[in-house]
Amino acid sequence: MGDNLVYKILKSHLIEGTIDIGKEIGIKIDRTLTQDSTGTMAYLQLEAMGIDRVKTKKSIAFIDHNMLQQGFENADDHKFIQTVASKYGVYFSKPGNGICHQVFLERFSVPGETLIGSDSHTPTAGGVGMLAMGAGGLDVALAMGGGAYYIATPKVCKINLIGKLKPMVSAKDIILEVLRKLTVKGGVSRVFEYAGEGVKTLSVPQRATITNMGAELGATTSIFPSDEKTLEYFKAQGREDDWIEFKPDADAVYDEEIIINLDELKPLAAKPHSPDNVEEVESIGKIKVDQVAIGSCTNSSYEDLMKVAKILKDNKVHEDVSLVIAPGSRQVMEMLARNGALGDIISAGARILENSCGPCIGMGQAPGTDGVSLRTFNRNFYGRSGTLSAKVYLVSPETAAVSAISGVLTDPRELDLDIKVEMPERFLIDDSMIISPAKEGEDVEVVRGPNIKPFPVNKELGDKVEGKVLIKVEDNITTDHIMPSNSKLLPFRSNIPYLAEYCFNTVDEEFPRRAKENNGGIIVAGNNYGQGSSREHAALAPLYLGVKAVIAKSFARIHKANLINNGIIPMEFEAEVDYDKIGLLDELVIEDIKSALVNGKTIVKNLTNGSLFNVYINLTEKEINVIKSGGRLNSVRKA
Amino acid sequence: MGDNLVYKILKSHLIEGTIDIGKEIGIKIDRTLTQDSTGTMAYLQLEAMGIDRVKTKKSIAFIDHNMLQQGFENADDHKFIQTVASKYGVYFSKPGNGICHQVFLERFSVPGETLIGSDSHTPTAGGVGMLAMGAGGLDVALAMGGGAYYIATPKVCKINLIGKLKPMVSAKDIILEVLRKLTVKGGVSRVFEYAGEGVKTLSVPQRATITNMGAELGATTSIFPSDEKTLEYFKAQGREDDWIEFKPDADAVYDEEIIINLDELKPLAAKPHSPDNVEEVESIGKIKVDQVAIGSCTNSSYEDLMKVAKILKDNKVHEDVSLVIAPGSRQVMEMLARNGALGDIISAGARILENSCGPCIGMGQAPGTDGVSLRTFNRNFYGRSGTLSAKVYLVSPETAAVSAISGVLTDPRELDLDIKVEMPERFLIDDSMIISPAKEGEDVEVVRGPNIKPFPVNKELGDKVEGKVLIKVEDNITTDHIMPSNSKLLPFRSNIPYLAEYCFNTVDEEFPRRAKENNGGIIVAGNNYGQGSSREHAALAPLYLGVKAVIAKSFARIHKANLINNGIIPMEFEAEVDYDKIGLLDELVIEDIKSALVNGKTIVKNLTNGSLFNVYINLTEKEINVIKSGGRLNSVRKA
Repeated sequence: MGDNLVYKILKSHLIEGTIDIGKEIGIKIDRTLTQDSTGTMAYLQLEAMGIDRVKTKKSIAFIDHNMLQQGFENADDHKFIQTVASKYGVYFSKPGNGICHQVFLERFSVPGETLIGSDSHTPTAGGVGMLAMGAGGLDVALAMGGGAYYIATPKVCKINLIGKLKPMVSAKDIILEVLRKLTVKGGVSRVFEYAGEGVKTLSVPQRATITNMGAELGATTSIFPSDEKTLEYFKAQGREDDWIEFKPDADAVYDEEIIINLDELKPLAAKPHSPDNVEEVESIGKIKVDQVAIGSCTNSSYEDLMKVAKILKDNKVHEDVSLVIAPGSRQVMEMLARNGALGDIISAGARILENSCGPCIGMGQAPGTDGVSLRTFNRNFYGRSGTLSAKVYLVSPETAAVSAISGVLTDPRELDLDIKVEMPERFLIDDSMIISPAKEGEDVEVVRGPNIKPFPVNKELGDKVEGKVLIKVEDNITTDHIMPSNSKLLPFRSNIPYLAEYCFNTVDEEFPRRAKENNGGIIVAGNNYGQGSSREHAALAPLYLGVKAVIAKSFARIHKANLINNGIIPMEFEAEVDYDKIGLLDELVIEDIKSALVNGKTIVKNLTNGSLFNVYINLTEKEINVIKSGGRLNSVRKA
Repeated sequence: MGDNLVYKILKSHLIEGTIDIGKEIGIKIDRTLTQDSTGTMAYLQLEAMGIDRVKTKKSIAFIDHNMLQQGFENADDHKFIQTVASKYGVYFSKPGNGICHQVFLERFSVPGETLIGSDSHTPTAGGVGMLAMGAGGLDVALAMGGGAYYIATPKVCKINLIGKLKPMVSAKDIILEVLRKLTVKGGVSRVFEYAGEGVKTLSVPQRATITNMGAELGATTSIFPSDEKTLEYFKAQGREDDWIEFKPDADAVYDEEIIINLDELKPLAAKPHSPDNVEEVESIGKIKVDQVAIGSCTNSSYEDLMKVAKILKDNKVHEDVSLVIAPGSRQVMEMLARNGALGDIISAGARILENSCGPCIGMGQAPGTDGVSLRTFNRNFYGRSGTLSAKVYLVSPETAAVSAISGVLTDPRELDLDIKVEMPERFLIDDSMIISPAKEGEDVEVVRGPNIKPFPVNKELGDKVEGKVLIKVEDNITTDHIMPSNSKLLPFRSNIPYLAEYCFNTVDEEFPRRAKENNGGIIVAGNNYGQGSSREHAALAPLYLGVKAVIAKSFARIHKANLINNGIIPMEFEAEVDYDKIGLLDELVIEDIKSALVNGKTIVKNLTNGSLFNVYINLTEKEINVIKSGGRLNSVRKA
């Protein structure tokens, strides 16, 4: 029985444990990345670990999130990250150099290696055959320190691509189709490995769009093989030395298989407010569009924007539409500027934004009241755009560009135009905005602005867990709900006391006050709790507010890990109906929690209504020790 | 005795009054412009006037201020302005088309005509020989309605330019030299008319830099003749039909004259925190720089940015510097994209921002704590950058670009490079982002988002004015102090009740509370009160808070007009020492205010300490009627 790509990497990087579905394993991490909104915290944690230099092959700190800089906080964070990176041996990608996942793919990705990043879209690098995973900032800090990264051995689901995309149908439509089939929780505990004849019809940037947005499935990650197409990309990036062929064994075994026939795909859109709320563009109909936004780590490659430029050339954006375009990297931006495509885009009437995450993270370009916005991004969660009443549709660059001209949602196949884009023989290569770390870190002074506050650290676990239900939330609560990430709050990512005041702000503004008044307590939640962004702040803010446990129907992977890392106990209802029996401010108690952790199951008493119910506490031995220590940093320090 | 340019225009546009220094005249306004941060209010006022269509030759509504769009408010304002403009016959320049003054200069300026705009840098168009003045939004609304614009007949000061600029010395250094000589109040009640042999050595964009930043002198406006150089510019813009030769009579008379010898000028910088705090770059020394920002209505022309591109070409931005560049218009941006200069700029490591005001109005790119920022902008008021501890220096594009490479403030003459830029034979002309108004306005539905609130309207003047001193401020208080304009507040420019909570926020956070608790009252101020931006909100917010009068040592022109327009009485101390005798919350009373208005002088009783002092109330008959009616809109409605 041969190995699939995932098992090959897991085996070659295994440090601890046995590869057995669901069992925890520790793997060696070759590379790490951080971005600035999660990175400040990760580097504060790295500092707290007391090591001299990072121990990975290469670690890179990117600045791409907080680029608007409306107060001193962002520039201070950038300076902190630049200096701390230099001190500890981390490469620093300056603001303006591009979005972490796009730049990593271009300049740092290596087939067959492992990557974790403090951003949920780290799987992007799976497009070249890396095992690339989003993780909490603390996990990334620990990996930089040379520690293993722990995951439950995932199932591997083969996505067999057959056929070939029709003109004006794109990689974005493939991942939207997968989301339609599997939903936002369909990927939990799984890695999606793309295979089949269709793979070789897809370029690396197309593959990266798919692995990027695979994050929306709740998957551990997604991965493509490294083949001739990958080599072509690495050659064009002047990095053929980093390339290896990396393919599954001919008789590789998979746990599951899905077939996607590319021939049959049509342009799709994810309707408000979930990436899996997918329908064919032609069936949604020609709704009037107020804004079109092209970019983000999902669709901002040279290839994507060249297609957009070809569609826009000699056309004009509809007078009622605001079209904004943010190229994914300086490489993309300069190439477009050099070859005339940027001129064509500007001529059409597009607004050119910086190479950054921008509107995808609510960092500007919020639509107007009730505004319809078509975006090539990966998430359309409620409120994420900055406008609660906005209706955000996720679409391909082709659909976006064609609709920007027509002023209504338009199936791009209506435009009879050849927009095929060849991979350039050579990308424009210039790494001058990537600053190498100091040779000797000791002499580097880390610059720490006044907004950079110490992060909260939990205490050792006591004998029992008790507290009131501070909030009860529905299914599919995202980390955007738990710790909103808008342009007003992003500057405070290194200031947990401030951020905590906005915890659950869009769901229940009273939560922080209630948490404080009751000296902390317990969160009750539905299915897929904590989906979306990897932000650790969705655990740190509740920790600061005294949250001791979250009882949910089920958890999203990264958020569960973040809770554990911070000593907050994740519990799952044995019977989902018990969820209905809990009310706000009910007093819950779990006696003898330490035994409960070992048993993996316990009884919760509801003192308010006298009921009892069972919960699972699905933790590995290692995780149990982390919880007992009051979080990962405590347990590492103790070790 | 021949006429200077100013008198020629005043005479040809005179509707009311006699041209006599200091005397009020009403002049016909040919063109108007608005931008979005003052425009929403201006169009609300236009609607309140009850006319069908604007009566100017051409009126244009630009969107260039609130481009970050962090909530629905900005997009709603843009949509409101777009629809209200269409209804009333106003051209609409879409977001992304560029900064109002740059686009107006390129596409709408006409020598010998009059322009008022709801932005203090409207004098930019003086660079082609227009009489172009900043005004309050209400003045602009009244002019759109066909009303005269009232000003005190200004003195005309001839600035005689002799010689020719040395390489790497630029138009920015000329206006900085004028500011050094005259200070920020040196232009009060004056128009500066540029003349002399030096004029013909300056291109239109260079002249526009000078007239633009002439606003910092407190001047009514600045103006250049329209000559062969102007024709060259109009030809290149495809607008030779709009050009006329416009020169002063050979024996023109001026009230004052200043000589600037261009041969002797060196690169200058305005140090923190005032545009007149000017020193030679070489004498300031090589201070370390954290940020360099190039753009704004002062220095974002094709010529400016081509010079910057030539300096940056084959160089790299210093690793500790963040260089941000915002081209002034889509024309500039597309030309740079087409000719390779944008590629050179990106290659150097610059961050490219949208064509908009951007960081100049604190809309992003706030420096870090204690950060040193070199900016090609026109204002470096305390706090305007968004970072209170930042040190902002105003410099030429040449100084900015050279310093971005070296990482320290650097005299650009150190770089031995020919960066001469020829005027293109033909600019890239494309007005497709300027939307023509509807032919029939009646059918246009004005879209009004929920943040667009009715504006406050004053009541008829009573018999006496009395109230407590709500705040006592120093000299040179800017409208930025009175009504801060940062990225958090700009979205609320059409919501006075919200904005008022931040009135005087950087000076005294308690002001709004104090004003409300005392049912309004009186502001006491030093010299040059209300300098800077033309924003009417610096009168509207105090009006909302119940301010009845401002007693100052002296006023800046536009702000004084805005106070009068809103029925707030501007009074000036007869003896400046009386300022020292007033304390916070002293109770002041002026009996028989109506006689006082007519007499132009009255006695103020300080009931708290029993003292008496004299104030002037310098108002024209027309202004007296406006004050009596409780503001201009009331007086127009009554008429």
